[in-house]
Amino acid sequence: MTPTRTALAIILAAGDGTRMKSARTKMLHEVAGRAMPAHVVDTVSRSGVDAVALVVGRDGEAVAKACALPGVSLSTFEQTERLGTAHAVLAAREAIAAGYNDLLVTYGDTPLVTAETLARAREGLAAGHDVVVIGFETDRPTGYGRLLVRDGNLQAIREEKDASDEERKVTLCNSGLMAINGRRALDLLTTIGNGNAKGEYYLTDVVEVALAAGGSAGVVMAELDEVAGCNNRAELAELERIWQTRRRREMMLSGVTLIAPETVFFSYDTEIGPDTLVEPNVWFGPGVTIAGDVTIHAFSHIEGATVEAGSQIGPYARLRPGAVLHEDAKVGNFCEVKNGDIGKGAKVNHLTYIGDAEVGARTNIGAGTITCNYDGANKAKTIIGEDSFIGSNSALVAPVTIGAKSYVGSGSVITDDVPDNALALGRARQTVKEGRAEAIRERALALKAANKAAGQK
Amino acid sequence: MTPTRTALAIILAAGDGTRMKSARTKMLHEVAGRAMPAHVVDTVSRSGVDAVALVVGRDGEAVAKACALPGVSLSTFEQTERLGTAHAVLAAREAIAAGYNDLLVTYGDTPLVTAETLARAREGLAAGHDVVVIGFETDRPTGYGRLLVRDGNLQAIREEKDASDEERKVTLCNSGLMAINGRRALDLLTTIGNGNAKGEYYLTDVVEVALAAGGSAGVVMAELDEVAGCNNRAELAELERIWQTRRRREMMLSGVTLIAPETVFFSYDTEIGPDTLVEPNVWFGPGVTIAGDVTIHAFSHIEGATVEAGSQIGPYARLRPGAVLHEDAKVGNFCEVKNGDIGKGAKVNHLTYIGDAEVGARTNIGAGTITCNYDGANKAKTIIGEDSFIGSNSALVAPVTIGAKSYVGSGSVITDDVPDNALALGRARQTVKEGRAEAIRERALALKAANKAAGQK
Amino acid sequence: MTPTRTALAIILAAGDGTRMKSARTKMLHEVAGRAMPAHVVDTVSRSGVDAVALVVGRDGEAVAKACALPGVSLSTFEQTERLGTAHAVLAAREAIAAGYNDLLVTYGDTPLVTAETLARAREGLAAGHDVVVIGFETDRPTGYGRLLVRDGNLQAIREEKDASDEERKVTLCNSGLMAINGRRALDLLTTIGNGNAKGEYYLTDVVEVALAAGGSAGVVMAELDEVAGCNNRAELAELERIWQTRRRREMMLSGVTLIAPETVFFSYDTEIGPDTLVEPNVWFGPGVTIAGDVTIHAFSHIEGATVEAGSQIGPYARLRPGAVLHEDAKVGNFCEVKNGDIGKGAKVNHLTYIGDAEVGARTNIGAGTITCNYDGANKAKTIIGEDSFIGSNSALVAPVTIGAKSYVGSGSVITDDVPDNALALGRARQTVKEGRAEAIRERALALKAANKAAGQK
Repeated sequence: MTPTRTALAIILAAGDGTRMKSARTKMLHEVAGRAMPAHVVDTVSRSGVDAVALVVGRDGEAVAKACALPGVSLSTFEQTERLGTAHAVLAAREAIAAGYNDLLVTYGDTPLVTAETLARAREGLAAGHDVVVIGFETDRPTGYGRLLVRDGNLQAIREEKDASDEERKVTLCNSGLMAINGRRALDLLTTIGNGNAKGEYYLTDVVEVALAAGGSAGVVMAELDEVAGCNNRAELAELERIWQTRRRREMMLSGVTLIAPETVFFSYDTEIGPDTLVEPNVWFGPGVTIAGDVTIHAFSHIEGATVEAGSQIGPYARLRPGAVLHEDAKVGNFCEVKNGDIGKGAKVNHLTYIGDAEVGARTNIGAGTITCNYDGANKAKTIIGEDSFIGSNSALVAPVTIGAKSYVGSGSVITDDVPDNALALGRARQTVKEGRAEAIRERALALKAANKAAGQK
Repeated sequence: MTPTRTALAIILAAGDGTRMKSARTKMLHEVAGRAMPAHVVDTVSRSGVDAVALVVGRDGEAVAKACALPGVSLSTFEQTERLGTAHAVLAAREAIAAGYNDLLVTYGDTPLVTAETLARAREGLAAGHDVVVIGFETDRPTGYGRLLVRDGNLQAIREEKDASDEERKVTLCNSGLMAINGRRALDLLTTIGNGNAKGEYYLTDVVEVALAAGGSAGVVMAELDEVAGCNNRAELAELERIWQTRRRREMMLSGVTLIAPETVFFSYDTEIGPDTLVEPNVWFGPGVTIAGDVTIHAFSHIEGATVEAGSQIGPYARLRPGAVLHEDAKVGNFCEVKNGDIGKGAKVNHLTYIGDAEVGARTNIGAGTITCNYDGANKAKTIIGEDSFIGSNSALVAPVTIGAKSYVGSGSVITDDVPDNALALGRARQTVKEGRAEAIRERALALKAANKAAGQK
Repeated sequence: MTPTRTALAIILAAGDGTRMKSARTKMLHEVAGRAMPAHVVDTVSRSGVDAVALVVGRDGEAVAKACALPGVSLSTFEQTERLGTAHAVLAAREAIAAGYNDLLVTYGDTPLVTAETLARAREGLAAGHDVVVIGFETDRPTGYGRLLVRDGNLQAIREEKDASDEERKVTLCNSGLMAINGRRALDLLTTIGNGNAKGEYYLTDVVEVALAAGGSAGVVMAELDEVAGCNNRAELAELERIWQTRRRREMMLSGVTLIAPETVFFSYDTEIGPDTLVEPNVWFGPGVTIAGDVTIHAFSHIEGATVEAGSQIGPYARLRPGAVLHEDAKVGNFCEVKNGDIGKGAKVNHLTYIGDAEVGARTNIGAGTITCNYDGANKAKTIIGEDSFIGSNSALVAPVTIGAKSYVGSGSVITDDVPDNALALGRARQTVKEGRAEAIRERALALKAANKAAGQK
């Protein structure tokens, strides 16, 4: 592609999607934790376009918000009537008129097209075509428009109902995505008519219009997976599957061990370093960065967290937004960390809730420890120094600061600050009543018998 | 199907299944949380039969119990000898003799046949056939009986060993399921002989018998998945896979988002409303009803629970029988609710056990709270009012009532009732011994050194 | 195979594997919890070889350690230069020279070959061949060496680049694994030259050398899955998938119910008895033995544990090394057992940590119980007698002994031994301050308002 060519990408995201059976527009449904059209914004942006025009319908404001990625020049246009795909593209007439060499037409519900394929379509424009259609090969072409090609030039897009028997055997099909000469786009698009059964303006007619005007059209190929669309939630799940399969493979080839890749789910922005091992059944929500040489045990649920090298997570660890694990830290089973900073080499191993807290380096948090960070209205902070030891089953009532090298006895409720090097206890003395267990048991059994008798009445 | 035709379904469920390697009969093994033949009872019932005759063998009483679905007229017959499938059908001679227009013959270990296919088989009887066999197409017919059809009429069922080379190329095979003219069924079935190598009475011979008597036979097609059977636990897992795949698709098409459908497991009776989102790895046991607009996070395990709209569950939430979440309630990570009613907007967010309890609307249950509902012999109840706040790491010893708008301090053991608006505490005061942590550490390290030295001796 | 024939297996495990993108050699990466070449050691050992020679490169010591299986005579040889596969085999010259009837050449990164296939290759030697190559059929032979066979004899191994158009159509390919006449092996191997583009000594040339010397060569077939190799982590995951698929099927056919086999992960040594039911999403690490008639609920994570008949595990149970569940024991949700002996019929049902402990038969451990087994330096032991009842949310501070038939009150911290039949309490009395909750709420809301106001400044 000539680097000096400018480009505008139009993303058609006005489709409602009644077969989704949802109170929200189809365009707000997510793949890998991100609304479908936002994937397209990201892709066209990476493919080097200068501006993006988003054509929205229902829930337009929310769709535009979901698509507002940093560093991308995005303008939003509303399609108020539904008069066909060419009409939808022309909703962005103002953006097209601003003048770009290349115009890319993409779809908010076709989120898996790659930047490479889009770039190849633009190369076709650079080579002189007025329109370059993105096609795909399929064993089951029935229902798709066929791409009729001669000598490398696209001659026509033939709809199923208009195709001859011979043409129906063609397995090269139209994805709907295309690149159009940006200088000629408005002329071509406004020439498209609506003299068809539904009275709609079809974007595919741009090929016929361009050829009739003496221009030429080309085809570039996409993988079948790239052009998969979404009309119901089964198809949404299929898009998710394709996305995850791609990303898992990339992760593995970059040096991450996934013992069972099909059971690990990434978000659009998950980053993991080499020699990290991920056991089966791990979920990554948005905002996760994991260094190399980390072990993530099965059944971990991680979002918004940063994990440094040498750390160990899980099994059954939940890291929520704001969780930071420094080098060689450990967060073990049935532990939740939210907005918590776990120091280098610190251990939070069992049945613990760390919320709004700092845990110093090398500090050991005993099993069943709870930071009580909420009073019913406010969140408050717990700060624990380095090299300390928090005994099991303790409750640390925030705001509270526990010093370095301190020691909290098991089962304590800590409400006041603890200085460095201090021992803190907040528990009752043990009392033993010999021989009394029998009486308790007898009373319990008597109650049981009475209840049973009452139930039988 | 003429609505006035009556029908009896016979379910052959006497097969033992030695290849299951089980202490129980094959017929008690479950698909989607329900014994295989009970699926067939449900299906024939939905297909409109008037009565069901269950033919049982080993563990017959347990099989009959598993098959007793509400609203279905079911009678059970024991097959005492094993003399072939026709002999098995005749174990229900009494039911057949009661006189129905149509007789359906189905199998307890072929649980995935659909009501639609059975209805089409009955249509064949209504159209005049004496026997209508349910067939299926397969690429690998070897071993199956082939259905030889001419002009839409079934001419014969040819067993593999008796087939000519030409007949072996036939890919239309016999599933074993069939519909028989109910008025002629006893005549036909009792005419079947046992003049074969094994000396058994084969049901497939009913076609030959019917044709010899001047009748006619037809074929209706089933999908391959519908006629899958079960002889070992690998096949049982395959039945489960087919069932789950079907149900997941239905759920998605009805408006439920399954991010990774292959990781979500439903029971036969799971119901979920539209716009509910299910993250990967969720298990639904029997008896679950989920409203629309609910979020179910990963790693949740739900059975016998009712969940109202707007609720959030998990990750790692376990809802057990009797769990009820009212609107906008939240049960979060590492929480278990058993026989517990969680009020509208109430929150049970972390590391909590709620058993035999009521939690009032908008009440917040702190992390690590335990309802102590068991005294070793009896279960007792905990009642918590609306708008209350239970501090973290508290133990509520049932029977106990905590009033509305009350406040329980973190780390408390509550054994007595708490009035409305009251503050309850049950914990020791904190004491701090400055500089004492060092002594503890030194003692611990000295012990470690002593143990090590002892170990080296 | 003549039982009196002796055999040496050589395992080439010097490959570095730069495409693994790992700080460790490829040969230390694991399938089913065991380094790849250790699988080969196990397989050749089960196939009946007398000795194993391991040829190592980078991280050789660690690889040898990972391969040291009990009862196997293993010697390790270092390949210092990389001059081709024949050169690698000759690194074990000393072992070959010791004199065996049969020499098997296998690869550390081809861990799934079966003992049966290796035995068949040795049968080919017994039948008189000098070399028997293990081949496989594939639809996509491009890139593989083709096996050219006439009258059952291997004529040549033709590399892709040297193959004629006709030869390229051959779909019988070379796996690289082979058996060589042990008496002639050194002669043959040292005759191989390096007159090729890379100047390397290729083991495949042993066929040409043997034929040139008047010998004969044969082929035995392996399944495609058996000869899958590993050059990157995507291929490693594929090996894991194949291994797990095999083992799951074996488990099911032996009488274990796997509701969703694709979600259950075994280690190389997992053993499970018949009529055990495994719900979806269960992970077995090394060292697990489960009896029959056990129920393992979803989301369980089990390693190094022994479980007796009738036990119930999970959901969300983590059994760690040293966990022993005696008959009919129960470890439930969000429970962790490490080095803990759970007596017959004992129950550890909810949110509990049992570490370095013994729990007597029929004893009930209440929800939220923690054994405090660590003082920051040492582990200590908790012993609980039979028929006892530990109230919920208790902390048992080890070393401590709690007698039989004793009763610990909910929320207690137990630091001293408790005799048989005694009641032990270690908790504060409850106090109630009527009407005080309102003041707390008001204070909290005032703080919230103040914080909000401060944030807005």
